[in-house]
Amino acid sequence: MVNVGIVGGTGYTGVELMRLLSMHPEARIGAITSRAEEGVSVGDIFPSLRGHVDLTFEKPSLSTLIGCDVVFFATPHGVAMEQARELVAAGVRVIDLAADFRLKDLSQWKKWYGPEHIAQDLLEEAVYGLPEINREKIKTARVVGNPGCYATAIELGFAPLLASGLIDPASLIADAKSGASGAGRKKELSIIYSEVGDNFKAYGLDGHRHHPEIVEVLSGVAGGGVKLKFTPHLLPINRGILATLYANLTEGGSSLVRESFENFFKNEPFVDMLPSGQFPDTRSVRGSNFCKIGVQLSEDQCSVVVISVLDNLVKGASGQAIQNMNIMFGLDEKMGLNGLGLVP
Amino acid sequence: MVNVGIVGGTGYTGVELMRLLSMHPEARIGAITSRAEEGVSVGDIFPSLRGHVDLTFEKPSLSTLIGCDVVFFATPHGVAMEQARELVAAGVRVIDLAADFRLKDLSQWKKWYGPEHIAQDLLEEAVYGLPEINREKIKTARVVGNPGCYATAIELGFAPLLASGLIDPASLIADAKSGASGAGRKKELSIIYSEVGDNFKAYGLDGHRHHPEIVEVLSGVAGGGVKLKFTPHLLPINRGILATLYANLTEGGSSLVRESFENFFKNEPFVDMLPSGQFPDTRSVRGSNFCKIGVQLSEDQCSVVVISVLDNLVKGASGQAIQNMNIMFGLDEKMGLNGLGLVP
Amino acid sequence: MVNVGIVGGTGYTGVELMRLLSMHPEARIGAITSRAEEGVSVGDIFPSLRGHVDLTFEKPSLSTLIGCDVVFFATPHGVAMEQARELVAAGVRVIDLAADFRLKDLSQWKKWYGPEHIAQDLLEEAVYGLPEINREKIKTARVVGNPGCYATAIELGFAPLLASGLIDPASLIADAKSGASGAGRKKELSIIYSEVGDNFKAYGLDGHRHHPEIVEVLSGVAGGGVKLKFTPHLLPINRGILATLYANLTEGGSSLVRESFENFFKNEPFVDMLPSGQFPDTRSVRGSNFCKIGVQLSEDQCSVVVISVLDNLVKGASGQAIQNMNIMFGLDEKMGLNGLGLVP
Amino acid sequence: MVNVGIVGGTGYTGVELMRLLSMHPEARIGAITSRAEEGVSVGDIFPSLRGHVDLTFEKPSLSTLIGCDVVFFATPHGVAMEQARELVAAGVRVIDLAADFRLKDLSQWKKWYGPEHIAQDLLEEAVYGLPEINREKIKTARVVGNPGCYATAIELGFAPLLASGLIDPASLIADAKSGASGAGRKKELSIIYSEVGDNFKAYGLDGHRHHPEIVEVLSGVAGGGVKLKFTPHLLPINRGILATLYANLTEGGSSLVRESFENFFKNEPFVDMLPSGQFPDTRSVRGSNFCKIGVQLSEDQCSVVVISVLDNLVKGASGQAIQNMNIMFGLDEKMGLNGLGLVP
Repeated sequence: MVNVGIVGGTGYTGVELMRLLSMHPEARIGAITSRAEEGVSVGDIFPSLRGHVDLTFEKPSLSTLIGCDVVFFATPHGVAMEQARELVAAGVRVIDLAADFRLKDLSQWKKWYGPEHIAQDLLEEAVYGLPEINREKIKTARVVGNPGCYATAIELGFAPLLASGLIDPASLIADAKSGASGAGRKKELSIIYSEVGDNFKAYGLDGHRHHPEIVEVLSGVAGGGVKLKFTPHLLPINRGILATLYANLTEGGSSLVRESFENFFKNEPFVDMLPSGQFPDTRSVRGSNFCKIGVQLSEDQCSVVVISVLDNLVKGASGQAIQNMNIMFGLDEKMGLNGLGLVP
Repeated sequence: MVNVGIVGGTGYTGVELMRLLSMHPEARIGAITSRAEEGVSVGDIFPSLRGHVDLTFEKPSLSTLIGCDVVFFATPHGVAMEQARELVAAGVRVIDLAADFRLKDLSQWKKWYGPEHIAQDLLEEAVYGLPEINREKIKTARVVGNPGCYATAIELGFAPLLASGLIDPASLIADAKSGASGAGRKKELSIIYSEVGDNFKAYGLDGHRHHPEIVEVLSGVAGGGVKLKFTPHLLPINRGILATLYANLTEGGSSLVRESFENFFKNEPFVDMLPSGQFPDTRSVRGSNFCKIGVQLSEDQCSVVVISVLDNLVKGASGQAIQNMNIMFGLDEKMGLNGLGLVP
Repeated sequence: MVNVGIVGGTGYTGVELMRLLSMHPEARIGAITSRAEEGVSVGDIFPSLRGHVDLTFEKPSLSTLIGCDVVFFATPHGVAMEQARELVAAGVRVIDLAADFRLKDLSQWKKWYGPEHIAQDLLEEAVYGLPEINREKIKTARVVGNPGCYATAIELGFAPLLASGLIDPASLIADAKSGASGAGRKKELSIIYSEVGDNFKAYGLDGHRHHPEIVEVLSGVAGGGVKLKFTPHLLPINRGILATLYANLTEGGSSLVRESFENFFKNEPFVDMLPSGQFPDTRSVRGSNFCKIGVQLSEDQCSVVVISVLDNLVKGASGQAIQNMNIMFGLDEKMGLNGLGLVP
Repeated sequence: MVNVGIVGGTGYTGVELMRLLSMHPEARIGAITSRAEEGVSVGDIFPSLRGHVDLTFEKPSLSTLIGCDVVFFATPHGVAMEQARELVAAGVRVIDLAADFRLKDLSQWKKWYGPEHIAQDLLEEAVYGLPEINREKIKTARVVGNPGCYATAIELGFAPLLASGLIDPASLIADAKSGASGAGRKKELSIIYSEVGDNFKAYGLDGHRHHPEIVEVLSGVAGGGVKLKFTPHLLPINRGILATLYANLTEGGSSLVRESFENFFKNEPFVDMLPSGQFPDTRSVRGSNFCKIGVQLSEDQCSVVVISVLDNLVKGASGQAIQNMNIMFGLDEKMGLNGLGLVP
């Protein structure tokens, strides 16, 4: 039984970790912390968990967490890098759902996340937690940087094509759309219902912090630099990301496109390649840990469109974190993650 | 041409006042104030108004407002009562969209809105701005307390039945549902999209500040005390209130029910009584100043159900405020308010 | 291992049965039928189930179903009563998710569902599948009439008060609101997105077919006739019912109200009575089999308001059907139903 | 006063024509036809119009329409081409909101719309009703093919760049998202609320009928063939299109990009070019006839992203049709179209 600690459990990735772990047969939540809600029972803030997650938010403290086998940081950026060193030193493994251990390029970190990185040694050894690319490294990792939600959808959609050299790595476009829960559970005028409901918009057109993460990972896959245009949009839905990906084929009319996906994801338990002519909608993965992908060649056979969907709170965050935990602790990778998409 | 001032123009009732006044042939906005957005152009905050409302938010100041014919307060509760006296003294008429001049009962004011009321003399002369009940008094009012959105829907739905003595005044139940814009444009966790979208809840079950307002007005109509149960709910829609009203008939099988509505609203330009068997949905009044009402007798003919809908930002706030302004300045009551419901 | 047959698997209760059964450790789907989709794989119609429900829709036929231990009818009203007799004769137990085996009063059946009932003998022995009231009878039932979604929410909300004699049985009002999936998966103009989205309406004001079902069941609980006003409304959400229930207390100021609920549901695994001052929203049960209930006494202590929520496709249909199956086959009642509400 | 006839008034473009014309000071609706709803009053089907559009649906007949100055066809594709010839012969001008008079290329017509075109002579003289490109020709047109909704958004977004030669005409990508009303008011399983709500998907990936229309028009603007990738998506909103447009600049770092838009739309009453760094959301044009556009150069200055939004039922259909009517009859082009975006 894996003893789990959760730091910062009052956000959406926190409540999702608890929902998923409540169904996990080999994990138990030993501690959950929140500075703001210390002493409050989880069920009072999240009535959906009443009677099944019988915990009370504690003040964050090393002594509480040090007894855990693994600690998930479901906190804002910058918290995990402050606390990880002591935990790792004590033999606790760390999975950060924020960005502290994602980007290897420190100049990009500084540009997008502000303060100096204060755990550069850990960052160096940290493993980017995308099992479809890094499964072997994740097994033994002491620190895992859990991928961003946009990043996961886009990386899984482009990786097979880049790995097989079928597309021009300088031609990538990701037109991505995310549900509102991707913005987190916080008091912000731009995400209140009356601003988002029955509305649609693009944002981050002059740059988005997920961009360098995606470029770094895809460049690794491609074995060389990639160029990516990335436009995020805000959907009036709770959960779900759909990324529409465009790239030019290196040689026209490639019949190898679909094959590259099928090979790349052959044994992947959580990537579902749809048959020719089918394309996934976001609800098909609502609440589940799947990424579903559809592919279409252009009529002139010179380019390809990929549709990649996932639930930003599951495969895009808490579900993938648990998938990583399963890998790290030698459990069945699918354990606790067998829920299917809630339709409708 | 009526010269209009708007205090606090950055909320939803403020932007709605501007949208409606931009189509009003006999009114112009002379000044719009906002402490927080001083110096910012209206079009930068509300791109929908770009090019048609060419104003800049000013710091609130008496000297700016004193040149207006009428000042709308689209502010939180408590602001109008601080500033109204000087404006009225200078001959400026005041329409408050908040609650400062709605409740005559000062103990209720204190219970629900907190601080001592500091303009009790003005409150005494203030007219409750529901034209269907107070049209004559509104004509000459110096201060109008614009009704609440729930209050308007519920009062219009019960008034004909109470005025004609057809229902037991102790049996009133208002099960009311409001769109999210009724909560205003503010940073609050409970109204972010991820809390409201694809969700539904009741609130205020231990009491709601609109309750005493409704009871006060309906008691006036009934000529004696009424007893009301009122349960508000939060709908995942932007605009619209639908109130489902229940009451027991004083004598069974009354054929006078429909007649009471038709008589009461015979010459009303903004109340639309639907034919027998038809009931309004909220979109039928989206963006318009209408209140639409449907009525059904129970099978045993002993009670009645009334469905009353309006747009909380129009007939429930800014539209009604302009209707009041039209009445106060001797204009055609319908002027600038001829927009029909946006469907779909 | 219980061998399950599903008749009519292309509707929302059908896909929900499959989603839930895919996580049930002691049940397997042996056959799924659909006249319209014969030969089509389940995953092609419901991509959310791809790879986990590897079945193909078959033509409905007795020979296919007769090998099952239990057959769920997820069909329109009138189908189960045609096919149940042969199945029961062959020892197959039947759970009907439609209305064929809910109403004991045949005149009400005829009034609301049209044709003559052609399996009156089975109807007589059929058990109304609300475990909180009929658990013992369900254990040995050959035919279970699974309750309607509105009916479940309203019956669970009123039952404790009626059973304990705390409320006047002639004073019941149920103002109920349902998500759009309650209307089923069918081509109908009134339920297309552009008619329902960002909109809200009441319907069925001149009578609704769930009314006699609720009255029949609650009269049984009360030990005498009850009188109920019932107004259904259509919410722009996918799943979820919230019923706001009103009743007059037989003696004012009863401190027994909360106690009556706590006693009635003491050992119920799927009814969650919220603490005083808390009221459930629909999302707290999204995708889960719980009914959550909150209670409030009026200020004058003369009446009570109950808020009852459930997911219309789970506790209101497929989840409750599986709960019934678990009871009928001696399994742990909670088996396969441990999913918690999807929030947000 | 222009006497208007509307053929097929029961769809969303029909009701929107009526809503807008009810506010038009120089037009009156003389006749409205619908085969299915003959004899029914408009207000019974669209309660939002009750009391302000006092018409009854008539059986379509030449004699009724021949007395009109202009007839709008708000019908499915293929109806206008059957009836236009007799109307034109009688001196009635025709504005078709469907596709019958949009595409000049008959092979494309046949490929996407099926039957042989039976009014090829009229098609030849028909003018594509995009005022920003064809204003002069529209003035005297006897037959106007009103542009598609996607087409309007995409054409206005690309036209300035193509006209000025700033972008590579072979590099166009339009990732477009539309609200559900774009699919029309019809009984179709794929557009019911439970399929669209809280969901998002791409469609038409193997080709969409608006594609040839856009290519034809943009090729005209560019003075040579353009190549376009076009991916439509279905948004869970009622109204609104947002098109995210990508193109490669012919010479890097062009400072002329913004200038090209400002020049192209300098005197356009219904195209609003947002300031640098601002991008429109769909609600900013909800219910209004505006197209709002924002532009961003990529960081490497080699490509451009354009965000173009409009209300698919107004500038994308009925509003643009009235704008065309105003031009054809020498009225102020903005007449009846002064409504601003409904926010929120």
